[in-house]
Amino acid sequence: PVPFDFTEHPHRRYNPLIGEWLLCSPHRAKRPWQGAQEKPQVEHRPAHDPDCYLCAGNTRVGGERNPKYDSTYVFTNDFQAMMPDTPSGRVSAAPGDASTATPASDLFVAEGVQGTCRVVCFSPRHDLTLAEMRNEDIRLVVDTWQQQYRELGALPYIAHVQIFENKGQAMGCSNPHPHGQIWASSFVPQEVDTELRNLRAYYERHQRHLLRDYVEQELRKPEERIVCRNQHFVALVPFWAVWPFEVMVLPAAHLRSLLDFSDEHKDCLADILRRVAVRYDNLFQTSFPYSMGMHQAPTCGAPDDHPEAHFHMHFYPPLLRSATVRKFMVGFEMLGESQRDLTAEQAAARLRELSDTVHYTSRL
Amino acid sequence: PVPFDFTEHPHRRYNPLIGEWLLCSPHRAKRPWQGAQEKPQVEHRPAHDPDCYLCAGNTRVGGERNPKYDSTYVFTNDFQAMMPDTPSGRVSAAPGDASTATPASDLFVAEGVQGTCRVVCFSPRHDLTLAEMRNEDIRLVVDTWQQQYRELGALPYIAHVQIFENKGQAMGCSNPHPHGQIWASSFVPQEVDTELRNLRAYYERHQRHLLRDYVEQELRKPEERIVCRNQHFVALVPFWAVWPFEVMVLPAAHLRSLLDFSDEHKDCLADILRRVAVRYDNLFQTSFPYSMGMHQAPTCGAPDDHPEAHFHMHFYPPLLRSATVRKFMVGFEMLGESQRDLTAEQAAARLRELSDTVHYTSRL
Ligand SMILES: O=P(O)(O)O[C@H]1O[C@H](CO)[C@@H](O)[C@H](O)[C@H]1O
Ligand SMILES: O=P(O)(O)O[C@H]1O[C@H](CO)[C@@H](O)[C@H](O)[C@H]1O
Repeated sequence: PVPFDFTEHPHRRYNPLIGEWLLCSPHRAKRPWQGAQEKPQVEHRPAHDPDCYLCAGNTRVGGERNPKYDSTYVFTNDFQAMMPDTPSGRVSAAPGDASTATPASDLFVAEGVQGTCRVVCFSPRHDLTLAEMRNEDIRLVVDTWQQQYRELGALPYIAHVQIFENKGQAMGCSNPHPHGQIWASSFVPQEVDTELRNLRAYYERHQRHLLRDYVEQELRKPEERIVCRNQHFVALVPFWAVWPFEVMVLPAAHLRSLLDFSDEHKDCLADILRRVAVRYDNLFQTSFPYSMGMHQAPTCGAPDDHPEAHFHMHFYPPLLRSATVRKFMVGFEMLGESQRDLTAEQAAARLRELSDTVHYTSRL
Repeated sequence: PVPFDFTEHPHRRYNPLIGEWLLCSPHRAKRPWQGAQEKPQVEHRPAHDPDCYLCAGNTRVGGERNPKYDSTYVFTNDFQAMMPDTPSGRVSAAPGDASTATPASDLFVAEGVQGTCRVVCFSPRHDLTLAEMRNEDIRLVVDTWQQQYRELGALPYIAHVQIFENKGQAMGCSNPHPHGQIWASSFVPQEVDTELRNLRAYYERHQRHLLRDYVEQELRKPEERIVCRNQHFVALVPFWAVWPFEVMVLPAAHLRSLLDFSDEHKDCLADILRRVAVRYDNLFQTSFPYSMGMHQAPTCGAPDDHPEAHFHMHFYPPLLRSATVRKFMVGFEMLGESQRDLTAEQAAARLRELSDTVHYTSRL
């Protein structure tokens, strides 16, 4: 009988970061597609758009006017999902709190939360994306993220600072001006909490860092899942990737958060982010949509409360086969289990063979 | 100071079925939308489309010809995500298996899986959806689901039968002919496993059924989250709903799976499914996209192995404000925590006030 081979046979993989399985169907990539087609992002934008509420000097929806900024610019979201002054309070009892647990108290649990949401413009140039910015300009974005993480994390009511970017209409982004968001909250969000629990369990079991061990294993087989690297950072398609061209960016050493970053780390993070973004755009010759963001130490408690925390970034891009054909995480994925049609190794090979210095538009 | 009020203030709710929190921002529904617009589904389809690979008598992509079926029709997916004859096997050690756990063995875990995927045509009529079918025709679909669950569940290599429907291009559906899918697998999928673990914990703690207790509580306040009901089934927006107009359909009594259904249960399920589908279409006067599916007892082990299992159906629809504006689960949602902009109670009130007998197209 043929032995099991995960480059060929349908299988499940285990994601040790969140403790969940996913289904991988390598043979299914050949399936014809007759469903929805994405509209690729319009490519020619002016350097300044008088109708863009993120461009320098323009007026926003809320009535405020942006300054004439010339590098990055941060402001509070005009439609925040959380606010600093919401009353605290809890409806019903804590789940699993056996002392007060009557059936109903397990079923209707809600609590008031505080927080604030900010927008980070990456550049005054309306027509750029991270893929088209220079390392030194992305470095200013990294500096801004570090500052914001420090500043928001120091607020007494903030337990966690989530830094992220939605890029492209396919990822719910409503404005093509290069920008990201920061949602700082009085709680550690569910996904981060789950990751921290798994990192902590591994740390307690082995006295080692899960992602440190993981990246070390990956570096031994650079032709498998590594996409590119520089002195301090590695970009790879994780063994347990869910999205077709999902990428994780992580440091080769153990860094808990942006606060542990030296100048050199910040330069290297800027460099690897640009490289990932350029490869993405080159893959289907389109401005590649994604959600990306950082996971790092929560900001509640003492700095040493989270020795298990390990800075890393996730890129979740939806495109599967071309600028117009995406992967839908629906049906079986929502009710049963995440599913992918090409292996992490195939995706990494595709991304690895592309240039990360020359952007496809410079050849048009 | 103002007391915490979850109809007004940003808060988190706890989902006891999967043990996860979500963020709810009731005040944010007023946010203007400048992002992507969905294309509403084209409304006028012929009763038979010679180019549709699901219509009776037509030839499919794989070359096979459909019979001239006149009620429901089931066939094996031409591009299955799982296959019956994949070799079994495991790479690396089980997570948490301390005896063999070296760091690397926790990090690269994969296992071969078997399964089969089927397509269920709900009707020979190309131009219908569940919302436009009659109760007696939907009843035939319920009969087919029950048969398939029994037949696939009896296969020795099948541990779980996932029945679902993706409806509409926005939910990755590639053919508007009314149909659903069944993915039967040698493993219990992640989401189902998570639910079963939470149901079991509640059952062991209280010697009661979580969803039975839940529906009983909801029935005491029919003006809060209940959308509609009939003799045996209730449709409601769960307290912990994530999608804007998410609905759960569940029996008022405890039923573990389709095998526990009497004829009356099957009639009532058909009726409530039609009613939910009609309300959905009437909400934004469009053929409402969604993924829906069943959770019930896995088919591995003895029938009594899963006393905690409780039949229920989830509807996950993406639309937020109109036929063209959807909710994107991106960015903060992917990296941090699910987030919604209107409360479950507001969504239920909107759905409750609509007709579930007259479909909006019959008034056009
Ligand atoms: O099998 P279909 O309808 O072509 O494909 C659709 O449903 C599947 C099961 O939910 C998903 O894996 C696909 O991403 C989706 O496009
Ligand atoms: O805040 P934006 O960019 O208008 O909105 C976008 O990002 C948010 C945070 O990821 C999501 O909650 C929204 O669904 C999405 O459309």
